[in-house]
Amino acid sequence: MTDEYFMQQALKEAQRAFEEDEIPIGAVVVQDNRIIARGYNMTEKLNDPTAHAEMIALTSAFSFLNAKYLPDATLYVTVEPCVMCAGALYWSKLRRVVWGASDAKNGFSRVQPVTSPFHPKTEIVTGLLEDECAALMKAFFKAKR
Amino acid sequence: MTDEYFMQQALKEAQRAFEEDEIPIGAVVVQDNRIIARGYNMTEKLNDPTAHAEMIALTSAFSFLNAKYLPDATLYVTVEPCVMCAGALYWSKLRRVVWGASDAKNGFSRVQPVTSPFHPKTEIVTGLLEDECAALMKAFFKAKR
Repeated sequence: MTDEYFMQQALKEAQRAFEEDEIPIGAVVVQDNRIIARGYNMTEKLNDPTAHAEMIALTSAFSFLNAKYLPDATLYVTVEPCVMCAGALYWSKLRRVVWGASDAKNGFSRVQPVTSPFHPKTEIVTGLLEDECAALMKAFFKAKR
Repeated sequence: MTDEYFMQQALKEAQRAFEEDEIPIGAVVVQDNRIIARGYNMTEKLNDPTAHAEMIALTSAFSFLNAKYLPDATLYVTVEPCVMCAGALYWSKLRRVVWGASDAKNGFSRVQPVTSPFHPKTEIVTGLLEDECAALMKAFFKAKR
């Protein structure tokens, strides 16, 4: 399986969020070429502004593996992680983090960190299926206006 | 009730963490002069490196108030929040955040943000009962060595 395939799966999660009137961001965690956890943004449904796709997918992955760290896993998320999620990804010690669309307003980069928030052992890949990931966000916010 | 009183309550939560062999950090959320949520670090017990005192207390507060934001609440935490928790506090839109000990290694300041990670409407107070909060951390790590 390719990175593109797994990002398409993260997009499916984002589509679920969209259909439930949530900001459409989705994530999957992959280890040994299979999806071990999924998540999509549930901040409205759970009345919890911390219920982001990444947080939900990470907690599910820890539970599935019964492990506190994910050194052999990759997390795919459709949009640049926010400050909170970047910090959560740091603690998770993932092998790789891959995201699609950048997010200048709400992504971690809004605080202009001098030092990367990610774990030094985590490889970061950005811009995968960026147009598809961004298009879903744009469609959501356009419908909201 | 004073800020000191509520920080003492956060210290009680931290003490609970200490007794359960968790890094001793505790938090309480206060609204209308009463504690509406508590949390202490449970990363070992839950096998989840995101199970920080602040995350647990925040999610409990959202649930208690059935609200997504906490504009009338203050969160007290014994140690400077990490990047993840600083991001969660941003999303929570608290009125105030008060912490005790600073944490150069794991606190949010490790990434040297040019822009504050906290919400512009949130008042930040630092250094409250700093010595007591730091002493508990030092005792924990000394015992671990």
